Amino acid sequence: MTTAALRIALAQADFLVGDIPGNLAKVKALAAEARDRLAADLIVFPELCLIGYPPEDLLLRPSVEQRIEQALNELAEVTGIHVLVGYPRLCAGRLYNMAGVFRDGVLLAEYAKQELPNYQVFDEKRYFTPGREAAVFALKGHRLGLTLCEDIWHSGPAAAAKAAGAELLLNLNASPFHRGKQVEREAVVRARVKECGLPVVYVNLVGGQDELVFDGGSFVMAADGRLVTALPRFEEQLSVVEWNGSAFIAAPSSQDVLTDDAEVYQALVLGVRDYVEKSGFRGVVLGLSGGIDSALTLAIAVDAIGPARVQAIMMPYLYTATMSLEDAEAEAHRLGVQYSVLPIEPMVTAFAAALAPEFAGLGRDKTEENLQARARGVLLMAISNKKGLLVLTTGNKSEMAVGYCTLYGDMAGGFDVLKDVPKTLVFRLCEYRNRLTPDNPPIPQRVIDRPPSAELAPDQKDEDSLPPYPVLDEILRRYVEEDESAEAIVAAGFDRETVLRVIRMVDFNEYKRRQAAIGPRITARGFGKDRRYPVVNGWKAGD
Amino acid sequence: MTTAALRIALAQADFLVGDIPGNLAKVKALAAEARDRLAADLIVFPELCLIGYPPEDLLLRPSVEQRIEQALNELAEVTGIHVLVGYPRLCAGRLYNMAGVFRDGVLLAEYAKQELPNYQVFDEKRYFTPGREAAVFALKGHRLGLTLCEDIWHSGPAAAAKAAGAELLLNLNASPFHRGKQVEREAVVRARVKECGLPVVYVNLVGGQDELVFDGGSFVMAADGRLVTALPRFEEQLSVVEWNGSAFIAAPSSQDVLTDDAEVYQALVLGVRDYVEKSGFRGVVLGLSGGIDSALTLAIAVDAIGPARVQAIMMPYLYTATMSLEDAEAEAHRLGVQYSVLPIEPMVTAFAAALAPEFAGLGRDKTEENLQARARGVLLMAISNKKGLLVLTTGNKSEMAVGYCTLYGDMAGGFDVLKDVPKTLVFRLCEYRNRLTPDNPPIPQRVIDRPPSAELAPDQKDEDSLPPYPVLDEILRRYVEEDESAEAIVAAGFDRETVLRVIRMVDFNEYKRRQAAIGPRITARGFGKDRRYPVVNGWKAGD
Repeated sequence: MTTAALRIALAQADFLVGDIPGNLAKVKALAAEARDRLAADLIVFPELCLIGYPPEDLLLRPSVEQRIEQALNELAEVTGIHVLVGYPRLCAGRLYNMAGVFRDGVLLAEYAKQELPNYQVFDEKRYFTPGREAAVFALKGHRLGLTLCEDIWHSGPAAAAKAAGAELLLNLNASPFHRGKQVEREAVVRARVKECGLPVVYVNLVGGQDELVFDGGSFVMAADGRLVTALPRFEEQLSVVEWNGSAFIAAPSSQDVLTDDAEVYQALVLGVRDYVEKSGFRGVVLGLSGGIDSALTLAIAVDAIGPARVQAIMMPYLYTATMSLEDAEAEAHRLGVQYSVLPIEPMVTAFAAALAPEFAGLGRDKTEENLQARARGVLLMAISNKKGLLVLTTGNKSEMAVGYCTLYGDMAGGFDVLKDVPKTLVFRLCEYRNRLTPDNPPIPQRVIDRPPSAELAPDQKDEDSLPPYPVLDEILRRYVEEDESAEAIVAAGFDRETVLRVIRMVDFNEYKRRQAAIGPRITARGFGKDRRYPVVNGWKAGD
Repeated sequence: MTTAALRIALAQADFLVGDIPGNLAKVKALAAEARDRLAADLIVFPELCLIGYPPEDLLLRPSVEQRIEQALNELAEVTGIHVLVGYPRLCAGRLYNMAGVFRDGVLLAEYAKQELPNYQVFDEKRYFTPGREAAVFALKGHRLGLTLCEDIWHSGPAAAAKAAGAELLLNLNASPFHRGKQVEREAVVRARVKECGLPVVYVNLVGGQDELVFDGGSFVMAADGRLVTALPRFEEQLSVVEWNGSAFIAAPSSQDVLTDDAEVYQALVLGVRDYVEKSGFRGVVLGLSGGIDSALTLAIAVDAIGPARVQAIMMPYLYTATMSLEDAEAEAHRLGVQYSVLPIEPMVTAFAAALAPEFAGLGRDKTEENLQARARGVLLMAISNKKGLLVLTTGNKSEMAVGYCTLYGDMAGGFDVLKDVPKTLVFRLCEYRNRLTPDNPPIPQRVIDRPPSAELAPDQKDEDSLPPYPVLDEILRRYVEEDESAEAIVAAGFDRETVLRVIRMVDFNEYKRRQAAIGPRITARGFGKDRRYPVVNGWKAGD
């Protein structure tokens, strides 16, 4: 067999879960562009791109089969290029996570994913049967092996593809972001490349889907482990590389290596943008408190969808400092968003009066603080209902962990931008964002500098109720993200009483998190699909 | 080997997820009772009883291993009886769902579950590695084979146990309830018994855990498929049977065959009772509207925890009919619960005034209805906060399906008793409950007879916005529970526009359900862990 230079297009694109006709249209448009503009012989799409990722229980609908078959038939309308797409397909009564190569409507090779992830946020064994065989196809004299996402994290599938004659591996991914994920991915693929001696074309999905953010970062790695080309993170891109059977020719890498702060910030922006756009909201509304969480959330929202679609509301009460009012207004002004002030005193007073007979003889407690938060929640939801705006909530991961938040109050809303961002990282992200536009930093410095306060009681400070945030966040990281026991955390140098108190708060507040808005996952263990705790729970820390 | 009569105790008991020390104490007490009162040689407990079911991500905590090892060591304190318990155990770095037989602290046999369910509400492949071998142990000359729950739904494990010499199968279960489940279970076990020719001792868990209700219904089935004994549903019981190697001697069956209405009602009562008790609430509070859902919820709450721990609140507004006020009061009076009336007009007026500038030029819409529902939600939550009472919500499955409910309004609360009960079944359950105490039927007849209304606007009726409930519920059953496509439902004789409208409502309102309270699952597809839909979702019905 003679070989000729092979041009492979990497389609790092954003798909909408469930929208098979829309996703097909995008596949066809990108394939035509790759053929016409990039002279590509083959275009490689992400895993399950025809239905989007993760499709979850949509996969249980029998009509998926018929819709996918129809889409695959319509792929024939793109001619003159090999198209490698991912889709679910039923064979002999079992559902497989498939990759198929089509040319002019003919299926040339089909591969069923062998390694099905069923941990963290993944539930693929709920739906799919694992494949058992390699699939290799020939194009212009080159033999290309198919793999899907998790396959490349294990030795078996690459080795099987090589044994079946593959000279290069194509790897279709739907790999969600967490902090540091790109470094992990490259290391894993490099290990695989060195183990099997084959180059890898790694194509990843990009975009937000509920709590997941897919960060792109597709790349081509040569057989010596060198990165040949790397696509940008957090945005769509169509790129081409040329392979002559021993070496690649590629455009210079367009992937910047992002700092931790930069990749988290971009993940949050993309998560908000895709949630708003894919859900069809006209815009967003959020409450500004004068504090750091709402200030950062506002900046992210504006970076995601522009100031014209963002409305900010300040809802002061007796305990709201003048500084908070000034700073909230400054934040809205600097970012150019619509800003209103709606005092909540009349509503709080009305509730207190209505409840007075019920509360006769009972002392003041958190109930009165929650009334303030809930009056604000009701106002924001009313504006949301009337104007078709999504309410963004502003609770950070530290607060969500220990329940320092009010159900149906500050937790009322559809998307919690900072849900997986610990408070100490919130501070860093504010500094990061201000440095991006030093002439007009969106977050006033004193918002960053003043001690955090919920302002639900006179002279209240977060640290009256909680350990200092650096201590709290490290205990939380160990307990929540690393599953360390109380004993292990104490042994690492933390005060026993503090550790036990924090753990009790985390365990107790599962009921709040169960009703919380979803929010973009940026760590390897967010409070979403990757932490499935019982609400009724007799587990006790530190016995 | 000589054989003697073997006395096997079935421990149908309720355990608390996560509370390993508490569960161990219960195991020890029941084992001692079985030995002393029932002269049992062996006591069989439910699956995973030491940690409770389902333990979910508690299983990812490394300290589970140490806590379980400690509990198994302490089992040695029970002597003179074989104890068969379920627990998670790590072997060679992999976690198994185990059953182990202990005698005087010695592990005589250990079995790892072979068939791991990973569908519906089950995620066992997330945690466990499947076992590969049968386990059989001898006791008084009898050879007993071990199986765990799902194992008995497949041919392999029973056949392997028989091949390994088993003469009788012990099957430890944590099998959750849905309507008609007991009939399914007995049919499956009967088929297995006939296939392998061995009798089965089937022991099930009982109790509520979050959305799951375990209904007990343990039984012994002889090798000819005859039911030897059957334990009651929805309550704890310790029973004994005697096996002489060919026949059983057992007490007469105490299991009544329950009607559909009866088993659903008992499931709801047990679900509420265990949620309240296991969470440690002092009691519950709920809003009474004068409608049928809150009337039924109140009756269930009182049957679950008694009238002294239940508080009912009526929160009338302009659109509340006099009849509703009268009926709510009658319901509270008939059941003997504390009853208050808190009109919401002052709060609604205050919100409307505060929002007037924001809403200038915009017409009246659902926003104003939601304000009423949310004012009520805030009042109930305040009472909950102040008094330590759980707020029960009253939304039924039909409403939750189509989003005929207000987030942070009538949806505010911790446990939604009717979440999986379609409206047509709500009517039947009211009639059922009234028949239980015909001298004092808790639900006034005209509450059942009047057309359902949310009373959020003048002369509002549910059927102004929704199809008649018998039509709606059948479309929902087909779409939600059976995954039928729009085409299939239309082909079954339903109006196309109605079908498409209902499906659109179900799909659109996923965001509400995501923040809904949990509630007891009584169907094979509740809106909980067994229906995992994306919020952002481009799937369209009827294309």
